[in-house]
Amino acid sequence: MSLIKGLAAHAAGAELLPFRYESGELGAREVEIAITHCGICHSDLHLISNDWGMSQYPFIPGHEIVGTIGAVGAEVKTLKIGQRVGLGWQSNSCGECEWCSKGMENLCPDAECTCVHRHGGYADRVRANARFVFPIPESLESKNVAPLLCGGVTVYNPMRMHNVNPSSRVGIVGIGGLGHMAIQFARVFGAEVTAFSTSPDKEAEARALGAHRFVNSRDSKGLREVANSLDFILSTVSADQDWGVCVQALRPNGTLCIVGVPPSPISVQPFPLIMGVRSITGSPIGSPTRIREMLDVAARHGVKAHVECFPMEKANAAIELAKKNKVRYRAVLTN
Amino acid sequence: MSLIKGLAAHAAGAELLPFRYESGELGAREVEIAITHCGICHSDLHLISNDWGMSQYPFIPGHEIVGTIGAVGAEVKTLKIGQRVGLGWQSNSCGECEWCSKGMENLCPDAECTCVHRHGGYADRVRANARFVFPIPESLESKNVAPLLCGGVTVYNPMRMHNVNPSSRVGIVGIGGLGHMAIQFARVFGAEVTAFSTSPDKEAEARALGAHRFVNSRDSKGLREVANSLDFILSTVSADQDWGVCVQALRPNGTLCIVGVPPSPISVQPFPLIMGVRSITGSPIGSPTRIREMLDVAARHGVKAHVECFPMEKANAAIELAKKNKVRYRAVLTN
Repeated sequence: MSLIKGLAAHAAGAELLPFRYESGELGAREVEIAITHCGICHSDLHLISNDWGMSQYPFIPGHEIVGTIGAVGAEVKTLKIGQRVGLGWQSNSCGECEWCSKGMENLCPDAECTCVHRHGGYADRVRANARFVFPIPESLESKNVAPLLCGGVTVYNPMRMHNVNPSSRVGIVGIGGLGHMAIQFARVFGAEVTAFSTSPDKEAEARALGAHRFVNSRDSKGLREVANSLDFILSTVSADQDWGVCVQALRPNGTLCIVGVPPSPISVQPFPLIMGVRSITGSPIGSPTRIREMLDVAARHGVKAHVECFPMEKANAAIELAKKNKVRYRAVLTN
Repeated sequence: MSLIKGLAAHAAGAELLPFRYESGELGAREVEIAITHCGICHSDLHLISNDWGMSQYPFIPGHEIVGTIGAVGAEVKTLKIGQRVGLGWQSNSCGECEWCSKGMENLCPDAECTCVHRHGGYADRVRANARFVFPIPESLESKNVAPLLCGGVTVYNPMRMHNVNPSSRVGIVGIGGLGHMAIQFARVFGAEVTAFSTSPDKEAEARALGAHRFVNSRDSKGLREVANSLDFILSTVSADQDWGVCVQALRPNGTLCIVGVPPSPISVQPFPLIMGVRSITGSPIGSPTRIREMLDVAARHGVKAHVECFPMEKANAAIELAKKNKVRYRAVLTN
């Protein structure tokens, strides 16, 4: 039993205010993490505003967490006090269903989310089932790895699922928190990478991150030139898009995978899907196994989130900057 | 050089009228087929009406053709005069591009369609590149196999592409020309089959074809009951659907594959795609290799189109019945 201190939203869209809650007994399979870093993900902003209708107030946002193990439950075998670890969007699953049995815990219908109906990482501590808490490879800096735990695996996992490889031509739509990691990972897979952005001023940065080609999403000539040229497009933006243009950019057998959540339905013409065997799909985070793999790949290949750090008590200011897309590319709160 | 006699549309939506054309010299790699049977596919109706903006008049429709080889070009090695063969939607491809090289000739950008910008099978004879002309297994009756050559492979190919297997739960939307073959093939793959139709009177026939379960697509309670239950849904209808209901019927990792061409864009909410890794895709016919395979599978497992035959000169009457969905399940013209 101890008092955990954090910053909570008390109503939809409200400023975060200091908030404390009783942690209760530590579960036998839980660990408690003393938080050093927590990324600000766009999902946090949506949860604070209750955009997805699933928020319960008060709640402490935050699910891109790095820290050190402060306490371990009686049955936890592999994690030790003092060890540096990470925790992402998912903090538990039923462990028994078809999807858990298959190692696809991220599809478990009883998945527990780190900051949905419970308190997350804009705090001094957080708890989670040890299966969802991952040792951080030594070479990765805490501030750069925090955003990998949700945003990183969100872009890495679909590339693995859809077999991105050195012969692939990959498009990354949106060069922000997710997109800037996606460009790096696509390069690690050996793909030819085309970055799409509505901000022409991001071209140099996109190329520095590894993009071979940059397309201004508002330039219809540029879009025509990439028609029928990509095997896999990852849409990382949470704004509505001209999905027809995305589909037209795909080669036959190509896939458009959506990981940012647009506000409106996705609408596409049937003919380009049918005649070109093109697909539209989505992907949510990744399994614990995939997160461990992604962290190893990031360590081996030097993939890291580019971040701006803010002290935890400046969370509201950092959130305002993130809302205005003024952070390049991820805000990270530090204790 | 010879005169081929057929029935041609001379303007969008017009009745078919007797029409003759000079065949020209037989190409070195071509064969000429003396047509005995030709299915009426909904694509023919769309082409006659120029619904897809690709029709040139006059043209002879028809692309589900069975007949006997009447002439072979100088370089044709495997087909012999008198042999019973079939020809489907595709009559040639460039033979050199990436897709032809991969054995995916149906994705060739220069694919030639049997009755687009050339004359098809509502005629006494037709010609095609020998690579697209297939020997018919002996046990299959000509009238029952004709619709397999376009409609059959259109539903068989995506089941193979998407790995339908004895553990799969498959939904077939629409019990018509395509759907009644799809139910049979899905059973051959060993799947549990759910048939969806807006016609409750088709339930007994759907079950006789092999469906384990029948859902009235207009019954919201029935649709709720199948939510989250299917791995693969094949939509065979060319009408607009409530695509959200289809997507909701999919289990995680499930795929909705569209082979009927609806008139309006397909619109779906992003969340069910993202959270459930659900996909929407399409599929056009199949490669020559896949058509040969499908014919073998049909012969081995007794899959056949259920047809009503009409003499060729009654084509207009048969078309009217097909337009009104009054044929169960495919009209076949005979010479």
